[in-house]
Amino acid sequence: MTKQKEIVVAIDGTGGDRGFLPVVNAVRFALALYPSLKLIIFGPSDLSSALAKAGVDAKRYEFRLASQNIPQDEDPKEVLSGYRKSAMRLAVEAVKNGEAHAVVSGGGTGPFVVLCRHILGTIGRVRPALCARMPSGPNHFTLMLDLGANASSSAEDLYDFAILGNAAAKLYQGISDPRIAVLNVGTEAGKGNRLIQEAKELIRADHNLLFEGFVEANRIFCGDCDVIVTDGFTGNVALKAAEGVASIFAKSSGIKRFFAKLACPDWLTPWQYNGSLLLGVNGIAVKSHASAGDEALAVAMVEAAKAAQCDLYELMKEELERTVSKR
Amino acid sequence: MTKQKEIVVAIDGTGGDRGFLPVVNAVRFALALYPSLKLIIFGPSDLSSALAKAGVDAKRYEFRLASQNIPQDEDPKEVLSGYRKSAMRLAVEAVKNGEAHAVVSGGGTGPFVVLCRHILGTIGRVRPALCARMPSGPNHFTLMLDLGANASSSAEDLYDFAILGNAAAKLYQGISDPRIAVLNVGTEAGKGNRLIQEAKELIRADHNLLFEGFVEANRIFCGDCDVIVTDGFTGNVALKAAEGVASIFAKSSGIKRFFAKLACPDWLTPWQYNGSLLLGVNGIAVKSHASAGDEALAVAMVEAAKAAQCDLYELMKEELERTVSKR
Repeated sequence: MTKQKEIVVAIDGTGGDRGFLPVVNAVRFALALYPSLKLIIFGPSDLSSALAKAGVDAKRYEFRLASQNIPQDEDPKEVLSGYRKSAMRLAVEAVKNGEAHAVVSGGGTGPFVVLCRHILGTIGRVRPALCARMPSGPNHFTLMLDLGANASSSAEDLYDFAILGNAAAKLYQGISDPRIAVLNVGTEAGKGNRLIQEAKELIRADHNLLFEGFVEANRIFCGDCDVIVTDGFTGNVALKAAEGVASIFAKSSGIKRFFAKLACPDWLTPWQYNGSLLLGVNGIAVKSHASAGDEALAVAMVEAAKAAQCDLYELMKEELERTVSKR
Repeated sequence: MTKQKEIVVAIDGTGGDRGFLPVVNAVRFALALYPSLKLIIFGPSDLSSALAKAGVDAKRYEFRLASQNIPQDEDPKEVLSGYRKSAMRLAVEAVKNGEAHAVVSGGGTGPFVVLCRHILGTIGRVRPALCARMPSGPNHFTLMLDLGANASSSAEDLYDFAILGNAAAKLYQGISDPRIAVLNVGTEAGKGNRLIQEAKELIRADHNLLFEGFVEANRIFCGDCDVIVTDGFTGNVALKAAEGVASIFAKSSGIKRFFAKLACPDWLTPWQYNGSLLLGVNGIAVKSHASAGDEALAVAMVEAAKAAQCDLYELMKEELERTVSKR
């Protein structure tokens, strides 16, 4: 491995359904996994004590007191006008003012998207979207977006998502010509509603994109394509429905739980793919699952560092300015 | 068990991805499982020979030659104007003209919905929807609709689906006050897009319905409610995403496949809940999964017979005329 530059990631230490407890272990794991990583951790004083008690190397992180937490369903206007000293806001601001290369939060999707859009701003006029890596075979991930940054989307928005996903698959996954598909209820050309049909026409007409047609939700994990485009409502439902079935297996009791662990393909361990990138904002912003455990949260921190290491934001900005300007 | 009346079910013997081969075994299973069942089977001559060769009791079924098959993605206008002698159309007509109590098809959802709506007509002005039974715990099913009868839906349509699902849960599942929820990206009152919010207001305002609020897709299989209302696009995606994960486990190879079978909860065997009811049309119409195997197709046939046995259509018509007329 070539020498890595030092990466600083700002951590919202208040988010997540499980409070700050997973944060301590996640910080330990992430620092161990990524030697050139440093963290700026925003959170309550209890978190500071817990980090010190756990023996986390004080040279690898800086703690900043920020005990204010933003409720998941807070009104966007309130998120922007109040909560000036919240851990989430201060962590996003650390990217804006150049102290950190990336920000990670396990807090509410709504507040996080609002703050990132407002504070970091968007690349050109592109519509930002949450992009997850869906495991789709051994050593293969399929990027899927939007996973819920937007409550409703136009055909132009879906086209933006295709451009964002295409750039991310190229730069982040190293795929030269990412295969792009639109999530639909069938693969036949005429299937789906008007939104889907209009988005299809826009994406197909762009010769910078390798459009492969439609993909059905039962094929998300099959690796038929590299980027799956969908609106935030549908994408969120698809992801959660998949999680729901996986958790039936994971939450079964006694001997069945044991068999479920043995049955699960090696490449489908949920915590391996935590951390959705909010693509289209000026900076690297990673949303961790609210119910993420420590392993999953550590993965989100490392993904943020990897994205910063490969200059994902700068490269995406160049790519988008080159392709979107042709519109 | 009280003596059951004889039920006649019309079978489209051409539908399904696997051709007519699963039909032969499914017919054998269904006739064995449901002693008072008789079938009218429409299909190609090969199917007739196969049924005879398999030794299916000739007194329990009548075969009618209909080799014409409707492609899954056929244009609705073509479906209605052409294919006059198709197995699917003739099977639907058998319900219309009173020869059969119910129809079962594993063909394309689009053509089946178009033919049922056109030939059978709808109950009042209600918008028909495909309603599946989602396994949600031992001996518990949650009805979910629409699963794809409609490509796009208005808030009024979602309200119709709530009324249809409520009636079906009462009459078919025997639940006195079905708990109704709307599928959404979060459970907080303000979550979701405009469609969801408008539908919520309509459903909540109807005092014949016990509205429980929103449900997230990861809770579909948890039994939190009895009826889940969603638009056909989202519902189809949710169902297929769930199937996609389940099939990763089912399709794993070697020892992992063995463990997956052992890990699966007893109540979550996929073929146990095949057969979606097309609610809101004048008659009982059941859509079997296109890729259903013989066990699953047999379950769809038996579900159709059960729905006919409890006079589901007549009772739903009464219930809808009583409640919808209040609008």
